[in-house]
Amino acid sequence: MDEFALIARYFAPLAAPEGLALTDDAATIPLVPGKDLVVTADAIVEGVHFLPDDPPDLVARKLLRVNLSDLAAKGARPAHYVLTVAFPKGTGEEAIAAFARGLGEDQARFGVKLLGGDTVATPGPATFSLTAFGWADGAMLRRGGARPGDLLFVSGTIGDAGLGLRALTGAAPGLSPALADFAAARYRLPEPRVSLGPALAGLASAALDVSDGLVADAGHMADVSGVNIRIEADRVPLSAAVREALGLGLMTWADILSAGDDYEILFAAPAGRRAEIAARAAGAGVAVSEIGRVAHGAGVAALDGAGMAMTLPEGGYRHF
Amino acid sequence: MDEFALIARYFAPLAAPEGLALTDDAATIPLVPGKDLVVTADAIVEGVHFLPDDPPDLVARKLLRVNLSDLAAKGARPAHYVLTVAFPKGTGEEAIAAFARGLGEDQARFGVKLLGGDTVATPGPATFSLTAFGWADGAMLRRGGARPGDLLFVSGTIGDAGLGLRALTGAAPGLSPALADFAAARYRLPEPRVSLGPALAGLASAALDVSDGLVADAGHMADVSGVNIRIEADRVPLSAAVREALGLGLMTWADILSAGDDYEILFAAPAGRRAEIAARAAGAGVAVSEIGRVAHGAGVAALDGAGMAMTLPEGGYRHF
Repeated sequence: MDEFALIARYFAPLAAPEGLALTDDAATIPLVPGKDLVVTADAIVEGVHFLPDDPPDLVARKLLRVNLSDLAAKGARPAHYVLTVAFPKGTGEEAIAAFARGLGEDQARFGVKLLGGDTVATPGPATFSLTAFGWADGAMLRRGGARPGDLLFVSGTIGDAGLGLRALTGAAPGLSPALADFAAARYRLPEPRVSLGPALAGLASAALDVSDGLVADAGHMADVSGVNIRIEADRVPLSAAVREALGLGLMTWADILSAGDDYEILFAAPAGRRAEIAARAAGAGVAVSEIGRVAHGAGVAALDGAGMAMTLPEGGYRHF
Repeated sequence: MDEFALIARYFAPLAAPEGLALTDDAATIPLVPGKDLVVTADAIVEGVHFLPDDPPDLVARKLLRVNLSDLAAKGARPAHYVLTVAFPKGTGEEAIAAFARGLGEDQARFGVKLLGGDTVATPGPATFSLTAFGWADGAMLRRGGARPGDLLFVSGTIGDAGLGLRALTGAAPGLSPALADFAAARYRLPEPRVSLGPALAGLASAALDVSDGLVADAGHMADVSGVNIRIEADRVPLSAAVREALGLGLMTWADILSAGDDYEILFAAPAGRRAEIAARAAGAGVAVSEIGRVAHGAGVAALDGAGMAMTLPEGGYRHF
């Protein structure tokens, strides 16, 4: 039984109404009219979500950033976080100092601060859990609001992190070194779209961040919204690195559409808002591409340049 | 370097002002005048904080309860929690179902609900992190408000969990079986003082829960408040189980005063509020004992029945 099935069966029945049956990346605590506290959490484990020799400062920054990405995709401005750390016994002070230094750098960069937490020792791999809080003006953006007729948009470029992981593990032979470095950096240190997300409030009908893979995350949106989503593959924005990997046969389209960890914002919006979206994306300084449509029905289809449905692996990338 | 030194050196500089330099068990997000959101977090690791063969439902309930205890000691009524779980690969569905069932039981009992979280797999021991939220009417109770002349109080009885751990690990030979069962239950399933804590708002000058041990936690209060705390050992409330253990030589006074995991509320209050405290404790249905005084100076002293200072182990019980 995978993560999604476990959550649905055992943990969803425990959720508060504002926990949205655990079908979203965040929950909201309504506080005062027009202002919601948005809460999200992620846990990462050495050897599963990061590599044992990843620099501790980058591990810390990625952990913070994936949570800031969740907040951004929910339209929330990040404010605080709570952190629990389980360091293996014998972890050197330098590693802990580097971990904290990484947090400090990104705190300054993103304007968030630590509220509290817990520090324990573990006989197992390093394990970190971070709960982040942000403020949404108006209602939090949810997965479940996409409507037939909406357009589908995504920020940035897709597939970079998947390529980066290949490059870091020696599975991208022949890729230009500069492009391999770019992709590795995208894997190691995602850029949460903190300026774009809040700018989409009142405009996007549904949003989430691309962590499991474009098709898998579009599938989450389709499931919770009760709609069908069609992705036009030739409109999916690709970096020079992924274009080269595609040309070299290092990645297939199915790889690109199912690779995780890009932490871009995938969102739907009514067709009449296209110009406003372009304006707000420009204001936020983030590229946004229109990549598909929302229709009646269920599930996700990816169409090639000729409009033919592409065959995709089941479920996309999953950490579990 | 231990947990406290690590936090002070590397993580405290990252704290927001409302994070109180990580010197308290919780932090507060001021929201609207007179209403603070109180946030606390704890992580537990199999083999460190619980035993591999502890029933999963009890592990879940203890994790929730230790966080509810922190909220209670801060004067907050519990409301929500966020949970991240790292289950070892191959964990059976029954164990996960039992874990969730335990949470459900205590959610109903304490009126809290799950907001969200994350589920991951780990190659190491089961590791859980829980962040709990509560509401404090007025200011959160803190560690740092004890003043010379205040009286010191504690709820319930002290030393039970330490005896329970001994009983569970075969280190309490000769203890009456019923008393051993009582102590084991106190270790496995603490009773967070959720009715007492909020009743102390506006009355206690400082409060925290006894998790590291009575003397160690009194030491935290003394340090952050900048005062000396004197505990009169013969006024420390003991259960029949601990009294028997003391008589049998299974525990010493030093063991009792330094045993952790009791999750009672230790608090200071002005001497003039003694009658009100008794009334509110009675209203909350929780026994409260006066066990000492706050004085000018620093540190903690435990005095025996003759008023002589007792020799205590350094630092009390620490999980790290």
